[in-house]
Amino acid sequence: MQEFTKFPTKTGRRSLSRSISQSSTDSYSSAASYTDSSDDEVSPREKQQTNSKGSSNFCVKNIKQAEFGRREIEIAEQDMSALISLRKRAQGEKPLAGAKIVGCTHITAQTAVLIETLCALGAQCRWSACNIYSTQNEVAAPRLKHGVAVFAWKGESEDDFWWCIDRCVNMDGWQANMILDDGGDLTHWVYKKYPNVFKKIRGIVEESVTGVHRLYQLSKAGKLCVPAMNVNDSVTKQKFDNLYCCRESILDGLKRTTDVMFGGKQVVVCGYGEVGKGCCAALKALGAIVYITEIDPICALQACMDGFRVVKLNEVIRQVDVVITCTGNKNVVTREHLDRMKNSCIVCNMGHSNTEIDVTSLRTPELTWERVRSQVDHVIWPDGKRVVLLAEGRLLNLSCSTVPTFVLSITATTQALALIELYNAPEGRYKQDVYLLPKKMDEYVASLHLPSFDAHLTELTDDQAKYLGLNKNGPFKPNYYR
Amino acid sequence: MQEFTKFPTKTGRRSLSRSISQSSTDSYSSAASYTDSSDDEVSPREKQQTNSKGSSNFCVKNIKQAEFGRREIEIAEQDMSALISLRKRAQGEKPLAGAKIVGCTHITAQTAVLIETLCALGAQCRWSACNIYSTQNEVAAPRLKHGVAVFAWKGESEDDFWWCIDRCVNMDGWQANMILDDGGDLTHWVYKKYPNVFKKIRGIVEESVTGVHRLYQLSKAGKLCVPAMNVNDSVTKQKFDNLYCCRESILDGLKRTTDVMFGGKQVVVCGYGEVGKGCCAALKALGAIVYITEIDPICALQACMDGFRVVKLNEVIRQVDVVITCTGNKNVVTREHLDRMKNSCIVCNMGHSNTEIDVTSLRTPELTWERVRSQVDHVIWPDGKRVVLLAEGRLLNLSCSTVPTFVLSITATTQALALIELYNAPEGRYKQDVYLLPKKMDEYVASLHLPSFDAHLTELTDDQAKYLGLNKNGPFKPNYYR
Amino acid sequence: MQEFTKFPTKTGRRSLSRSISQSSTDSYSSAASYTDSSDDEVSPREKQQTNSKGSSNFCVKNIKQAEFGRREIEIAEQDMSALISLRKRAQGEKPLAGAKIVGCTHITAQTAVLIETLCALGAQCRWSACNIYSTQNEVAAPRLKHGVAVFAWKGESEDDFWWCIDRCVNMDGWQANMILDDGGDLTHWVYKKYPNVFKKIRGIVEESVTGVHRLYQLSKAGKLCVPAMNVNDSVTKQKFDNLYCCRESILDGLKRTTDVMFGGKQVVVCGYGEVGKGCCAALKALGAIVYITEIDPICALQACMDGFRVVKLNEVIRQVDVVITCTGNKNVVTREHLDRMKNSCIVCNMGHSNTEIDVTSLRTPELTWERVRSQVDHVIWPDGKRVVLLAEGRLLNLSCSTVPTFVLSITATTQALALIELYNAPEGRYKQDVYLLPKKMDEYVASLHLPSFDAHLTELTDDQAKYLGLNKNGPFKPNYYR
Amino acid sequence: MQEFTKFPTKTGRRSLSRSISQSSTDSYSSAASYTDSSDDEVSPREKQQTNSKGSSNFCVKNIKQAEFGRREIEIAEQDMSALISLRKRAQGEKPLAGAKIVGCTHITAQTAVLIETLCALGAQCRWSACNIYSTQNEVAAPRLKHGVAVFAWKGESEDDFWWCIDRCVNMDGWQANMILDDGGDLTHWVYKKYPNVFKKIRGIVEESVTGVHRLYQLSKAGKLCVPAMNVNDSVTKQKFDNLYCCRESILDGLKRTTDVMFGGKQVVVCGYGEVGKGCCAALKALGAIVYITEIDPICALQACMDGFRVVKLNEVIRQVDVVITCTGNKNVVTREHLDRMKNSCIVCNMGHSNTEIDVTSLRTPELTWERVRSQVDHVIWPDGKRVVLLAEGRLLNLSCSTVPTFVLSITATTQALALIELYNAPEGRYKQDVYLLPKKMDEYVASLHLPSFDAHLTELTDDQAKYLGLNKNGPFKPNYYR
Repeated sequence: MQEFTKFPTKTGRRSLSRSISQSSTDSYSSAASYTDSSDDEVSPREKQQTNSKGSSNFCVKNIKQAEFGRREIEIAEQDMSALISLRKRAQGEKPLAGAKIVGCTHITAQTAVLIETLCALGAQCRWSACNIYSTQNEVAAPRLKHGVAVFAWKGESEDDFWWCIDRCVNMDGWQANMILDDGGDLTHWVYKKYPNVFKKIRGIVEESVTGVHRLYQLSKAGKLCVPAMNVNDSVTKQKFDNLYCCRESILDGLKRTTDVMFGGKQVVVCGYGEVGKGCCAALKALGAIVYITEIDPICALQACMDGFRVVKLNEVIRQVDVVITCTGNKNVVTREHLDRMKNSCIVCNMGHSNTEIDVTSLRTPELTWERVRSQVDHVIWPDGKRVVLLAEGRLLNLSCSTVPTFVLSITATTQALALIELYNAPEGRYKQDVYLLPKKMDEYVASLHLPSFDAHLTELTDDQAKYLGLNKNGPFKPNYYR
Repeated sequence: MQEFTKFPTKTGRRSLSRSISQSSTDSYSSAASYTDSSDDEVSPREKQQTNSKGSSNFCVKNIKQAEFGRREIEIAEQDMSALISLRKRAQGEKPLAGAKIVGCTHITAQTAVLIETLCALGAQCRWSACNIYSTQNEVAAPRLKHGVAVFAWKGESEDDFWWCIDRCVNMDGWQANMILDDGGDLTHWVYKKYPNVFKKIRGIVEESVTGVHRLYQLSKAGKLCVPAMNVNDSVTKQKFDNLYCCRESILDGLKRTTDVMFGGKQVVVCGYGEVGKGCCAALKALGAIVYITEIDPICALQACMDGFRVVKLNEVIRQVDVVITCTGNKNVVTREHLDRMKNSCIVCNMGHSNTEIDVTSLRTPELTWERVRSQVDHVIWPDGKRVVLLAEGRLLNLSCSTVPTFVLSITATTQALALIELYNAPEGRYKQDVYLLPKKMDEYVASLHLPSFDAHLTELTDDQAKYLGLNKNGPFKPNYYR
Repeated sequence: MQEFTKFPTKTGRRSLSRSISQSSTDSYSSAASYTDSSDDEVSPREKQQTNSKGSSNFCVKNIKQAEFGRREIEIAEQDMSALISLRKRAQGEKPLAGAKIVGCTHITAQTAVLIETLCALGAQCRWSACNIYSTQNEVAAPRLKHGVAVFAWKGESEDDFWWCIDRCVNMDGWQANMILDDGGDLTHWVYKKYPNVFKKIRGIVEESVTGVHRLYQLSKAGKLCVPAMNVNDSVTKQKFDNLYCCRESILDGLKRTTDVMFGGKQVVVCGYGEVGKGCCAALKALGAIVYITEIDPICALQACMDGFRVVKLNEVIRQVDVVITCTGNKNVVTREHLDRMKNSCIVCNMGHSNTEIDVTSLRTPELTWERVRSQVDHVIWPDGKRVVLLAEGRLLNLSCSTVPTFVLSITATTQALALIELYNAPEGRYKQDVYLLPKKMDEYVASLHLPSFDAHLTELTDDQAKYLGLNKNGPFKPNYYR
Repeated sequence: MQEFTKFPTKTGRRSLSRSISQSSTDSYSSAASYTDSSDDEVSPREKQQTNSKGSSNFCVKNIKQAEFGRREIEIAEQDMSALISLRKRAQGEKPLAGAKIVGCTHITAQTAVLIETLCALGAQCRWSACNIYSTQNEVAAPRLKHGVAVFAWKGESEDDFWWCIDRCVNMDGWQANMILDDGGDLTHWVYKKYPNVFKKIRGIVEESVTGVHRLYQLSKAGKLCVPAMNVNDSVTKQKFDNLYCCRESILDGLKRTTDVMFGGKQVVVCGYGEVGKGCCAALKALGAIVYITEIDPICALQACMDGFRVVKLNEVIRQVDVVITCTGNKNVVTREHLDRMKNSCIVCNMGHSNTEIDVTSLRTPELTWERVRSQVDHVIWPDGKRVVLLAEGRLLNLSCSTVPTFVLSITATTQALALIELYNAPEGRYKQDVYLLPKKMDEYVASLHLPSFDAHLTELTDDQAKYLGLNKNGPFKPNYYR
């Protein structure tokens, strides 16, 4: 378990905050913001709650919210028809019969639809939250009726966080044989505390960049002892999480925080990968003038052909109204850049982590911070200049806008299929390595979502399939095609 | 005063609601939503408040909020540089010296910047709110320091509404010589109660559709006894209020209320005027498939050339995900249409009034209304079908999104210039009629806003001006050009 | 006839070239380019030709091309279904019965469809060309079968030009009672030579900017002795001639002449009127980076909101790859600008005349001109720098691209309706003045073109019409609305 | 050499046409159309021509066109600055010193720039044409001055075609050590006739889909005896050949052939790969209403999110104005579809081959073919319905539009770098297999083209490079990233 020594045991606030993966501290504002925050102050761990079946094997904020949560779940189901459709198609054959899944993800209405689908397909589930803030308390409650044991609430302490995970894994008479993780904390905990559990585990499904990175490191170090499925990098999920979702959330995040008018604004977007492409397309369409910075000449050339000037940040920093980072890199926006920005310049981050803007450099005595709205700080220079910093440099799309249910449906369906694949794979198909979702399954996820758009696929004739050298049911593209 | 008999005196709830013009009941959600709503419950009319100069000649919610309001005003000033620039350019000559302006508009941070500009140019002002909900209490307070008497708070009763207007007009030793109105209620009140005041009035500046309509009716009936400036229809304001503003607010309003993903959604937009054009451009850009309905063949042909299918509402009503009205007409969406919509269809209104969707037809026993969020109702049919109705059919952009300060700056600058023009016009330039803002002034408003975009105008050479038959300083287009 | 003294009689090449209006010398490249140019060299005026009915009352290049021309006309009819539809609707009542129309326009397949429509509606026609280059010889021929007397061929001399016009007007036993003009040369000739003809004329229909300008001057001088209809400024025609047509022809013209790739190109467009808006929209959509120059702050502000940087030409002239003028002004691109352009910069004009680029300034000894393709000159500086000048600064869209038949259908339908209106108007409806096409007729032109797009108009209910104060059949907008 | 038996020896017209790869018969219309076609009729093989150095070791149409061709090459150089830049950077070290390259590609001005670059870098070259129609005679001539032996002219017979290739390969005292091929015919000839040549060959660079396919088949069969570089699939080339180039050429090809107006047209695009994406983006931007057909659910889902309706061809075939195939498949448009199209429907192909539209099915007695323009046929049904077929179903972008020089510059630079890489690779780096261009070289090609756009790359700091785990000079992305 050596490679995990970099994740310190919880010994205090500081170390704790480092030991939780990034996704554990970013919070979804979305539905969470509709959660009643005036709940009583008693810790759920100290409450005695019993569900309708008499079980106390769970820990949520308030089981009485179940009915309200049920409606939220029903609303979510309307935009997750792919999952419902999967539920119906596979319900007869129960492809997850016998599966005992321990999960650690955001606990939202959409996750509830996923879990209930897994149950409908035959699985038993125990679940905790991968983020101490993101749990929607009301949807944690109703899932219990399916016998799903949930341990999660909004506003967990660090200690609560690991306690919840532990309660999911460590139960007498029940041993998980599948792991569904988001961020790698659950996997880490099992490696660290219950390595023997892996003897029964048929596979790990991991959906976050961070968690996948950890898995590849384990694999590289020869320590990965079960097959793992990297669902983060499936084409369908990538396009939706990055290009399509960010195309909408950049506008939403900026509007909700600053009410800025986009028309005529000069904007610099750092990074022209999928996230940057999404941001730029939306901003250009609404009348902003967009500049790009890039390190990769191929992406830079694409930016040129798409009608954007490719510049160094210094060339435009004095003139732009908005700075957006989408690089995955660190210190892309430095204190020097911040010093040169004009008054009222808005700065925010759409990339993979909170390192892109050097926020720390702004914590100096000569600068005044003023919190003007939730998630909006004015940082004020001695001469009165204000820079508008959003979400303190954390992810704008997670902090200040919502993720459409439809996007979460893509992810959830991908996760469900990966679990089915790993659980049912014949011995030997998957080794102790990290796998991408097979192309055909990726295509299947996509096909399940087409009815939402009333989209009609064309089928190959036998003759055409032969001509193309393809199976009529796919896969239609090589694995590397995106 | 005969023509005003259609505006009944307040004798009860029903008549009251008719006696307030439409703009009086639509509420801006924007900054208003950041106002502390947990204020004490005492009516401002019963409070004893005194400003720093010892005057009690005002009535606001809480004078102690002045400092907080001041910051809001300062933030607004940053996006209203045109007005600040006008303030600076004209401050020396004080073109409004001697002007006594009575105003009735929304009371927001942006209005505060306008009023303070009028004061800086030499005017004295008394002000009330044109809408019982839209006042930002905190920005009502600080204006007092300039000696502006404000009578307005959020949540006025109908009686309060007219009382505030009356207090502005009816003051011993001070008689207004200019009126700035939004909706026509102030003008109505003066006509009705103090017709003699018009002997001193040099002009009325009116900015709303409703108010302008009333003025044209007065003029037609030969009852308009002073010149009036219709600033609603100046080109610059129109483009910003309709095309540019709606292009952004349709997205904002839909996202904030429903978190809907735009990509791939089928949307029908009723009406392809400027508002419709703005909505369609934005939705198309974000990947929606947009259909248009139109009654005017010229607008319909434009829709075709812009890449939209022009249909009758019945042809697509079963398949669309969103229905948006932008017609200015009534009963565009009928109960029959609503009956045929698919489950989860979103219905909202971006047009001029709340008549476009026949909401009344939904108030029948077999349908269940469920308020799922602020401004969002699910109307549920007996078979479980839900239609998502936004803002109960009132204006989405006013109810569920914000208006960018920059757009309000255009309007405020137009109002200020119209006041200056009417106040300083030589005898005889304007008769007892309704006028459009002269083209040259409209161009001046536009030019004051160009520096915000770092835009550089080209000047005509003498030779070119002669060739084109134009004055080098404009106007550059005939009055009818848009 | 004094006001016509500025149009000199033809006394030599120089004066001739001035005496023909601009539209007379711009040439359509379109179908004309498919015309066989290897015709024999004998002047049509010296040929003896007789049509199938034995008449020699015409003068065209080669009557034997009639069959080939017939096919071109049939192809044109397929995109002019509005005119065919008008033909069918009005054929029974023959609204032009008794009309004797003398016309002077471009002679193309599309004009043929117009003339044949006029004949079908009852008119007799005599026709000449408004341009010495633009006649498609093959379509001049077949019209004769309807008894239309055509006097036109490609490559007329100045003398031929006026001879043809004269032959149309001056015929024993036939006197025109309607004029259809394009450029005002026919009107000029009648004023000058046969003023008595105006006693019978019921009206003039004029479609060009130049011709309309002349008519307004006549009107201003009190010399206009019959009603005239300005069809150039009808909304539908304007939108198609400018915005929609230029959106396509800027791409087409640049591609056909230079094969330039648009993606990533930096382009400056001078002028952001309808033509400029069309050019910019297309170029931006294909990945060009577009800058705007403007003199009018309202247009400049629109450019900003549409996402373009507004600059002075000098600021970007060194960096741009393409310069496009759309101003209607003169000397917008000066020698100084041309001197500063970078190597390979493309310069062209989409505006109203050939004055926008100071081409004359390039005719100096130190510069070398090299004709590299038809309509493409390389102007070479002493240091080897080349500027690529298109169509010698004349209109790119007329010289180097084609005008879609559909656009010409809009114009032709407008002309036909204007003729019908003027011919049938009750005494007194039109005075000796210049009129715009009534809004309702403009709407009718639009409605006739909607079936091409399978577009379905919505009809107002009685209730709605009353609410809006409109007639159910239109007009739906005030005259000034565009 | 067994696997080549499927390429028959030339024994007659029929077999010949099969023995030439597809790219050999598609013709570039572009510059070729400016070539003087009235050349004398004597076959170049029968002419006696000597260049300025007294050599007769070449065979072109007319060596006297050298000067005219030189200017065409100079014009091409202006848009191929990347290649010129490569020439300058590598000229000192002569990385191709000793290379003896035999090439078989299209012979155009752009190819001339490539060949002259190879010579400047130290190579000796002998060249033939890969297509019997595409040679620009005038640019074949001037290359001789560098001692390049060219054997090619426009309008070769099948026999000429192989004779030219043979003359390049088979020369006493000169043996090739590198092959640059486009379509695989040269490679095929060497395999078939001079297998011993492969003993000296260090590598093959192949750029076409067809040629690459042949190489992979050879490799699979274990018959590939030298390393081969597949430059067709490098990211940069792919994006330009497909997405960016087709975005422009679909508009260009349709306009040049039909003058169709795009606005409001209903278009169905079969296939939403990169080619389809490019076509759709352009058409949508110009106001067309676009429908998609797809077999692959992932591409279909992308089409939905990009705002296109995904349909089966049958659903829209009756209503569309234009049908475009981009699938790479066969019989996508069948006779049944063609029978159901409406009058004037335009049908064309942008895909990989001429199989997509079943043109053969239209060669039946009841249908009349009418050639109305070059590359444009009207196929006429008994009831008079016309379908407008472009380029007889061959590639529209090659047949009816031009390929921008900039796109060819990308390809040529990629080819040059691949030759340098293979020629200089240390023993053992490349085995007898087909390789993709290394990512880093692909990035280098892109970076050489950035200066054309005045684009400025950002460089990683040491710290950032370490954080990302990247080399500061790239490659910046994994090989599979596109």
